[in-house]
Amino acid sequence: MSKKESFTPAWTEEAPRQGSYRSIFKWGDPAGFKHPNRGFYGMVKEVFEMTDSDFAQPQEQGNETVECELPIRISGEQIRAFEGIVGKENVGADDYSRVKYGAGKTMEEALMLRKGIVESAPDLVLHPRNREDVQKIVAYASEQRIPIYPYGGGSSVTFGFQCAKGGISLVMSTHMNRMLEFNETNQTITVEPGILGPAYEKMLNEAPEVLGAKRRYTAGHFPQSFEYSSVGGWIAALGSGQQSSYYGDMYDIVLSQEYVTPAGTFKTLDYPGTATGPKVNDIMKGSEGTYGVLVSATLKVFRHAPENRRYFSYLFPTWEAAVDATREISQGEFGMPGVFRISDPEETDVGLKLYGIEGTPLEKVIRLRGYKPMERCLFIGTTEGEKAFSQNVARNVKRVCKAHRAMSLGGYAAKRWEHGRYTDPYMREDLNDYGIMIDTLESGVTWDNLHGLHQGVREFIKARPRTICMTHASHFYPQGTNLYFIFIARMNDLDEYRDFQAGIIDRIEKHGGSLSHHHGVGRMIAPWMERHLGTPQMDVLRALKRHFDPKGIMNPGGTLGLDL
Amino acid sequence: MSKKESFTPAWTEEAPRQGSYRSIFKWGDPAGFKHPNRGFYGMVKEVFEMTDSDFAQPQEQGNETVECELPIRISGEQIRAFEGIVGKENVGADDYSRVKYGAGKTMEEALMLRKGIVESAPDLVLHPRNREDVQKIVAYASEQRIPIYPYGGGSSVTFGFQCAKGGISLVMSTHMNRMLEFNETNQTITVEPGILGPAYEKMLNEAPEVLGAKRRYTAGHFPQSFEYSSVGGWIAALGSGQQSSYYGDMYDIVLSQEYVTPAGTFKTLDYPGTATGPKVNDIMKGSEGTYGVLVSATLKVFRHAPENRRYFSYLFPTWEAAVDATREISQGEFGMPGVFRISDPEETDVGLKLYGIEGTPLEKVIRLRGYKPMERCLFIGTTEGEKAFSQNVARNVKRVCKAHRAMSLGGYAAKRWEHGRYTDPYMREDLNDYGIMIDTLESGVTWDNLHGLHQGVREFIKARPRTICMTHASHFYPQGTNLYFIFIARMNDLDEYRDFQAGIIDRIEKHGGSLSHHHGVGRMIAPWMERHLGTPQMDVLRALKRHFDPKGIMNPGGTLGLDL
Repeated sequence: MSKKESFTPAWTEEAPRQGSYRSIFKWGDPAGFKHPNRGFYGMVKEVFEMTDSDFAQPQEQGNETVECELPIRISGEQIRAFEGIVGKENVGADDYSRVKYGAGKTMEEALMLRKGIVESAPDLVLHPRNREDVQKIVAYASEQRIPIYPYGGGSSVTFGFQCAKGGISLVMSTHMNRMLEFNETNQTITVEPGILGPAYEKMLNEAPEVLGAKRRYTAGHFPQSFEYSSVGGWIAALGSGQQSSYYGDMYDIVLSQEYVTPAGTFKTLDYPGTATGPKVNDIMKGSEGTYGVLVSATLKVFRHAPENRRYFSYLFPTWEAAVDATREISQGEFGMPGVFRISDPEETDVGLKLYGIEGTPLEKVIRLRGYKPMERCLFIGTTEGEKAFSQNVARNVKRVCKAHRAMSLGGYAAKRWEHGRYTDPYMREDLNDYGIMIDTLESGVTWDNLHGLHQGVREFIKARPRTICMTHASHFYPQGTNLYFIFIARMNDLDEYRDFQAGIIDRIEKHGGSLSHHHGVGRMIAPWMERHLGTPQMDVLRALKRHFDPKGIMNPGGTLGLDL
Repeated sequence: MSKKESFTPAWTEEAPRQGSYRSIFKWGDPAGFKHPNRGFYGMVKEVFEMTDSDFAQPQEQGNETVECELPIRISGEQIRAFEGIVGKENVGADDYSRVKYGAGKTMEEALMLRKGIVESAPDLVLHPRNREDVQKIVAYASEQRIPIYPYGGGSSVTFGFQCAKGGISLVMSTHMNRMLEFNETNQTITVEPGILGPAYEKMLNEAPEVLGAKRRYTAGHFPQSFEYSSVGGWIAALGSGQQSSYYGDMYDIVLSQEYVTPAGTFKTLDYPGTATGPKVNDIMKGSEGTYGVLVSATLKVFRHAPENRRYFSYLFPTWEAAVDATREISQGEFGMPGVFRISDPEETDVGLKLYGIEGTPLEKVIRLRGYKPMERCLFIGTTEGEKAFSQNVARNVKRVCKAHRAMSLGGYAAKRWEHGRYTDPYMREDLNDYGIMIDTLESGVTWDNLHGLHQGVREFIKARPRTICMTHASHFYPQGTNLYFIFIARMNDLDEYRDFQAGIIDRIEKHGGSLSHHHGVGRMIAPWMERHLGTPQMDVLRALKRHFDPKGIMNPGGTLGLDL
């Protein structure tokens, strides 16, 4: 028995081979890994009725060299024209570039690339050097009716980079990743869209040394994709960071933007507040490259004071108590926590396994105090801001939690979570290597509809035998929150996977959840948009599309459901 | 001398005669008055080189009975069709209705109505009873190409109700002022757009008694026009209340809206956060009736806890110190004050006169401590929210003020200001009665541009001899604030007034201020919009206009600059 338990699958520990499919679909740092721990591995075997022998031999690892058999459909003359704009060194037409810059990080894309399936790719990859390059590219592409697909950090989980109609993948992160202007008086920074999270945050944290600032700053935006997502992507797909409850969603953080569109180039004005009609600045947010190319953005920054951060963790006896307490906190008028996250009973129990708490004396104490498996719910968080403000939020959180029969676990679980905040998705490759699918969908929801949505989606997922469904809420507002569903199943058939995912999106739509809270829409959710928003609202988005892009060259082929 | 000083002008103390021009242009409650006090009256005489004899005889008081000589340009058949929709009792074609529901509260409209000048009026006034009425009206008007001008509380100061092309004035406040749904779980309320501020706030304050709620709530929105402005107007023209620094602008407070447009009826979805493309809910805000008619809105409400409110007042030695301190407060990450207001030196000195402080021993102390006339600046405010949160904001405000050499004046000035917060505009009629013009313009601005804008606008206004220019900032954000200019001059010639006002708007535009912070655009600011936003952004607003209103029947004739 002890021998059996000590078996560990041969999780991959090497960076993917250059030029391989795996180097494209692997999440995050090529040399970065996070393997399922013993508790999680044990659970996977138990739930999926698998044995160690099922983990003897990894399958479809995607180590083969990328091939792209799709013909290049733009002419030599057109290629030479683009070379003339950006320089030969910034044009890619090789198989690898075409597949890499035409794929994101969805489960479906990973499954396909593992099988060597490439169904779409850009004809050409361009790496523009500056706004002028983008203007020339858009003008020429417009004249020649060549599709353009902007590409930022590469982390889209909604088919945001699928070049459905071929054409150009416009890679913004290669050169257009510079800081353009820092304004400490206004607490704003203007950057090109291709800058990635770590470089952006580091620059702000080191503002005195790097920018000659008086203080240190933070972006306040930490999505799970932080390491491989770009500022432009955050804006284009309306991201929310893990501390959004305090700092706001990307929608709130953007002060102004500059776009190159087929209908012209413009920069919206920098005003903290204005009443000059509908705000074009907001109209552009979330347009996912379908109206034009974002070439710069001015963002709000926040004072960086990690020394004031406080960590807390509580365990609630039930999901209902956890929801009631977090609603009370969100509506309590004392400011919001930064990290702010409740896990439903299934996610809580998986979490206790993952953190090695299950089966320990601590867990016994927890059980004895009445916090039972598949009922209890974990709540973790941080408080931010000025010292006394942060303390007061923590004090109020404690008061509300006690009133809802929660037990404090101290700051440990929150710190533990923070430590792994960006690396959990790295486990996907390990699971996929042995035929286990793990994926996520998320939805915004008002308080009054939360339980209906949670139950409705769980009902569908759990109706499938041997399927894990973990849910958390992690972005809070006075009027509601989000629900983030993580589902794990033994499944590697593409059609089965697609049907299953479509069924979940159906359920979210049917139960009144928003079709995305912070993943955006892309091509994945697009087919549901008309039913979700209704034709009159879709007509508004299509009218804007016709205005900005009358020839339909900007991210055509389904994104946002504009040209389905 | 003492005899001379005791003279008081015979300020009007009677409600305007029914049917008179004055009953239309008078601000606020017909029976409500606030007269200039002795200090203010003395200043007016001194600055404008007037004597008591100039205040012996009021002029152009507008007591005559309203006449409208403009022909009704819609046919009898069309009138009968509208009567068929809303009922005869909800149709007005009399002179008084036509003038009243085709005018707002601008200085220019008051000057014209005092002279009996009526340059535009609706052909017909309709009082729709519900959404279905509005749908039928819009459908018929669309078919017949009859302009529609929505009218809410009547307090527009941007020619928002001028029926430039005749047609229909659609009065939303007569019937469509009901509460439709209260959702305490979500902390939202759905109302028809015609409900006015006091009824709306009272219902929320009395939620336990009126709505069967567990708690009391507040709208958090208190514009100076509160008493005679409607929820629909707040949304249509993007209002900001006097506690907006804490509660947010109306733009932030609206969760969803329902519109009847020539292109169809739709209700945006209720989500606290969503990433489903550009937000149609936001696209409609600030459209000032040019895209369609708002028929209901769901708004966020806040817990009502006046017992936690704290009042503060400080005096800064200079405007620069006041601006630096309020910037530090706005960026300090401890939450924002509710009322939050700094007055520039000229407004501060007028305020000390108005509040009867000038010339008292207190003022001597103030001078001795180095706070000099035409240098010192008043800062008043309140803190809101949960008790310890409110205390902590007040504590931080105090800390920052001390660091910027401010002297505390206790809570008195803030309470005094709060007491008169809605009634100061009532003085306009008294001043106008004796040929003195008082008007305002306001602008949003980032911190780095604040002093340039303030100086640029003041330079223009003060270049006119014997002209008062008072400025305050009263809506704060981490990235900037607003500047609110109040100008007073002896002037009643319409052309002179128009030239002067245009000169100020020119200066605001030239110095980079937003063309409106919270008054909206209307027809007044519209001619500057193209230069302000630039053609590419105006083209976006025009593309939306073409989509919603292809025949141009919604608020045509200049509003927002869409059809100039």
